[in-house]
Amino acid sequence: MPNENLPNKKSLHEIDGISQPDHVNQDSIRTIQNFRRKSLNIDLLIEKLLQGDIPSLSKAITIIESTNPTHKEQAHKIIQTCLPHANKSVRIGITGVPGVGKSTFIEAFGMYLTSIGKKVAVLAVDPSSTISKGSILGDKTRMEDLVKNTNAFIRPSASGESLGGVSRKTRESIILCEACGFDTILIETVGVGQSETAVHSMTDFFLLLNLAGAGDELQGIKRGIMEMADSVIINKADGDNLKHANNAKLDINRALHLFPLKDSKWQPKVLLASAFYNQGIEDVWQLLEKYFSLTKENGYFEANRKNQNAYWLRETINEQLLSNFYQNQTIYEQLQNAENAVQNNEKSPFTAANELLELYSKIKKSS
Amino acid sequence: MPNENLPNKKSLHEIDGISQPDHVNQDSIRTIQNFRRKSLNIDLLIEKLLQGDIPSLSKAITIIESTNPTHKEQAHKIIQTCLPHANKSVRIGITGVPGVGKSTFIEAFGMYLTSIGKKVAVLAVDPSSTISKGSILGDKTRMEDLVKNTNAFIRPSASGESLGGVSRKTRESIILCEACGFDTILIETVGVGQSETAVHSMTDFFLLLNLAGAGDELQGIKRGIMEMADSVIINKADGDNLKHANNAKLDINRALHLFPLKDSKWQPKVLLASAFYNQGIEDVWQLLEKYFSLTKENGYFEANRKNQNAYWLRETINEQLLSNFYQNQTIYEQLQNAENAVQNNEKSPFTAANELLELYSKIKKSS
Repeated sequence: MPNENLPNKKSLHEIDGISQPDHVNQDSIRTIQNFRRKSLNIDLLIEKLLQGDIPSLSKAITIIESTNPTHKEQAHKIIQTCLPHANKSVRIGITGVPGVGKSTFIEAFGMYLTSIGKKVAVLAVDPSSTISKGSILGDKTRMEDLVKNTNAFIRPSASGESLGGVSRKTRESIILCEACGFDTILIETVGVGQSETAVHSMTDFFLLLNLAGAGDELQGIKRGIMEMADSVIINKADGDNLKHANNAKLDINRALHLFPLKDSKWQPKVLLASAFYNQGIEDVWQLLEKYFSLTKENGYFEANRKNQNAYWLRETINEQLLSNFYQNQTIYEQLQNAENAVQNNEKSPFTAANELLELYSKIKKSS
Repeated sequence: MPNENLPNKKSLHEIDGISQPDHVNQDSIRTIQNFRRKSLNIDLLIEKLLQGDIPSLSKAITIIESTNPTHKEQAHKIIQTCLPHANKSVRIGITGVPGVGKSTFIEAFGMYLTSIGKKVAVLAVDPSSTISKGSILGDKTRMEDLVKNTNAFIRPSASGESLGGVSRKTRESIILCEACGFDTILIETVGVGQSETAVHSMTDFFLLLNLAGAGDELQGIKRGIMEMADSVIINKADGDNLKHANNAKLDINRALHLFPLKDSKWQPKVLLASAFYNQGIEDVWQLLEKYFSLTKENGYFEANRKNQNAYWLRETINEQLLSNFYQNQTIYEQLQNAENAVQNNEKSPFTAANELLELYSKIKKSS
């Protein structure tokens, strides 16, 4: 709705006190007004975003994250316009269990990257954020310096979303950040669930933060996550902890060598760091540069991004097909009955499933 | 079609040489004939199955496994009629990597069970059987004694099927075996893939066969499978191997204690056995009896079966929704274009997915 307090600048605005003649269709007026207002703003927003304007990037991400159906078309336009300008970056996934020092590491790593001329965007995939009250990136004050840095952009994850929803929005945010000129994208997640697979599927390099412990270096980290890592950084490797950290490095190196060679032909490496004392951070970047030079030369970098796009195409289709079904009101109600029937052995699960699928097919035809 | 060589016993059969009067609808005759023939045979088949007739059970499973659409209704009737007579059994999943001695163990275990008055059905979930040429149960001759035993029924898995397809058919076969009077159902699978999860989700007890090795007892078995096991049996624990087997028992016991307590409140146990020398087989059954007595008393047995039914309801729906989409000819063709577009960054995966989903929605409406 137009704001009544603003001066009249629009050609189609009614003059106060004089009604429009009846032969003008009021709906058409509103449609034209809405169209002009929206397209003007979005075009300008995209233009500024492509020029590197961070407030515009921020607003564009808000539109993409919006669940308001009227924003869907705008989001679509933003993404399609940004897409040709994206893809010129490195995307780095960072994970580790709570307490490993992810925020401190990202702060130190991000500050180093900006100091060598990089533009750094930090995003998060955290479907658990409603439960954990935004355990990652939610509290930006934990990255005091980076948050004030004009060459850095930090965006907490969309909260209260399914993993699929968060993943989609993060992936689209990557495109926007890149179109806005950010060349190094850090994507943070917590080392405790399926979100690792999602982050691994949207990044070029996957970095696992770990701590040195008493023989339990591999504890707490799921086996599959260790397998995905391109590098394990043992954080808090300082003071009395240094000896433990060196032992952990040997153990983890041995474990990493047990996995089959990756498609990238990269042998994952273990490094020590102390993000708090700003030690070992440069080494991490040098390792990453070796990885990028290897994989850009052997073609893996490009091939992997193509595969990731194909993967997300399938993932999005699958998630949408299922959620369309389960969110249908009639299906939702009948599913309860079907569950009761199969639990009491009145129907086989397959009979009940077929009945629901036939019902759904009828609903879709008549909708 | 009626067999011309059979004597005419059907009331609606034409008398040779005399045409039906024109006012009788030939289609109706055929419909009635078909209906009577089918319902008579199926009713008889089910009746015999419920009386414990093994050839009828075998034929009923063939109808369920058939991909011929005309068998669908018959399969439905068989399952719905058998359902109230099923569920009175114990269902035991058996897995282990190739070479661990699954066939020998099932032969020995099955023979023991029939010797104490059990009726044993052996089924298999092996979606890989087209590749491995039926590595499990395909060669029944490996169970020489059990295959001749009148209180045993062995059925290899349906070959050339997706995991979902095999799982569905195996689960429905369980119902039929139980309705036929089999009280102990053994379901075999290979310890190398997702089929373990499927078998775990259709059984009351999950048994992992393992070998003693030189410190690598946990190698080759995925971590997740060890976690699912209610018991680990170290097979080939005989002769020179006995010492190794005892060490492996200690190691695996220690590993099993690291997992959180199961919902069933059962602490998984490790046993030694030598199926070839018929040693330790009775102990396995005694362990199982302890498990069933615990879980039937604490309510887990019944609750777990209900949960499994609900799980299979969802699984069937999900698989069907996705395969309906991907097997649609138009979608199949357009998906190739969409994949090319996202791989070349002409479209975002989400835009391309939405376009395909809208196309699919239109196809469904007009179909």
